[in-house]
Order: sequence, then structure tokens, then C-alpha cells
Amino acid sequence: MTARDTPGNDAEILALIDRQARGIQAKDTGPALGAFSEDGVIYDLAPPLAHGLDRAGTQAWFDTWDGPIGWDVRDVHVTANDDIAFCHGFVRIHGTKVDGEKADLWARQTLCLCRQDGAWRIVHEHTSVPFHMDGSLRAAIDLQPT
Amino acid sequence: MTARDTPGNDAEILALIDRQARGIQAKDTGPALGAFSEDGVIYDLAPPLAHGLDRAGTQAWFDTWDGPIGWDVRDVHVTANDDIAFCHGFVRIHGTKVDGEKADLWARQTLCLCRQDGAWRIVHEHTSVPFHMDGSLRAAIDLQPT
Repeated sequence: MTARDTPGNDAEILALIDRQARGIQAKDTGPALGAFSEDGVIYDLAPPLAHGLDRAGTQAWFDTWDGPIGWDVRDVHVTANDDIAFCHGFVRIHGTKVDGEKADLWARQTLCLCRQDGAWRIVHEHTSVPFHMDGSLRAAIDLQPT
Repeated sequence: MTARDTPGNDAEILALIDRQARGIQAKDTGPALGAFSEDGVIYDLAPPLAHGLDRAGTQAWFDTWDGPIGWDVRDVHVTANDDIAFCHGFVRIHGTKVDGEKADLWARQTLCLCRQDGAWRIVHEHTSVPFHMDGSLRAAIDLQPT
């Protein structure tokens, strides 16, 4: 086992991501944001380029969904030693918006974590979809992980 | 100095990013891709959701630019210990495409690194712009870091 192959840390981090996913699915800002360090920096699907933790903004986004949010995390690859970690994978975001629109897209997600006071916390999240470079500049919300 | 506050590592990583930027500006795949681990995973501005190192694809993208590529990296924040690191910041990509179009946009960039055989290498890159959630789904290429 090397410093970058630490199953205990991987399991703790995957559990954190799972708790966060269940918080988002239930539209509960407590577990959804509790995974973050208070000074977390987020590169989100929507503008601006970067923002910090925003409980009111997160709640407002939750409120745009009718019923639970589908938030299925897949193919998470963790690299960790005892106090720094990062992981990348995919998340399928799906459900029905309050205006009746059906939403269903796959995004890429990178999480960067530090162990703080003994517990892993996300200090940086980067979630995005690519965009089509055919002149349309449209977000590529029709892609799936291979 | 804590395990997450290692100026020597920060300086090495910033130098790697600078060498990579100069490679991209000069459209030279050697330094542009030499910063990566051979098994690097890239979440790019354009589809697909993820890809590996692609020298021919990178050269093809370089060839879409008339003259040098403007690639200005800003506000890079590094977190590192002795064998794992991550950093996030912004990059302004600008210049003239071969079809005469003027391009100029700010993207967010997250880099995840490991020290391999003594040298830092990028094992994961995530570069993106957010998209407008006003129904247009247009990539937000008109944003600037604050």
C-alpha cells in the first residue's frame, strides 16, 4: 500500500459523497452542504464562474424541483493520502422541475478534499458539462459516460 | 508550516503550470502535454464528457488557431502535501481562429496532481464554463472572474 492507495480514506470519502447525495435527493441543505468546508470554493453548473457556500441559493435551487431530485453519482475515482484527496466521476441529475419540465443530464464532477479536525471536508467542487463547439455554444446535456 | 502549507511544492506546481501555459501559447504539444501523467483523465471544454491524453486531438485544436493562443492563467490556489496536490483558478483563452473569428473567454480550471518518480504530474484536469439556465442552455462565455 502506498501513500496514494489508502482504502480507509477512500471509504470515508465515498461515504461523505453518499451522505451528500442523499441530502441533495431529499433537498435537505444540512447534509448537502455539511460535506463542505466553510470556505469551500464551488465552480457550479450555472453562473457565476465561482462562488462560495450559499445556503439560501442552494435552497432556492432545490425549490425549483417538484419532488425529489435525482442525483446519481457514478464512477467515482478517489486519490487520497492522510490529509489531502481528490476524486472525479459523473453525476446524473434528473427529475421534474416545478414548471413541469423533465430534466435529465449527466455532468462531470471533481471534488477536492482536506482532512480538517479529523474529518474529510470538500474544499473545492467543480461540476460542469462541456459545450458544443459547432457555433451553437449549447451546453452538451445529451452526453452519457462511456 | 502544516502538511497542507508546503511552499516548495507550491512553487514546483506553479512552475509546471507556467511551462504548460507557454507550451499551449506556442502550440507545442510537448510541454502542453508533458505536464500530464500518461493516464491523465481530462474533463474538457468540448465533448466528450471525459477523455485521456490525445496528442493528435490537441494538435488539431492548436491548428484551429491563427497564430499563438492566448492562455492566461490567473488566481491559482494550490493545496499540496508531499505527494498529492490540487489547484483551482481561471484561464483566459483568447486569440483569432483560422476562420477569422475572434475568441475570448474565461474558463474555470481545476488540476489534480500526484508526485510520480519525484516529479509532479497532472493526473486530472477539469476545465469548463458554466451555462445559462434561462432556457437557452448557452455556454456562459461572457463571464469574468471577480
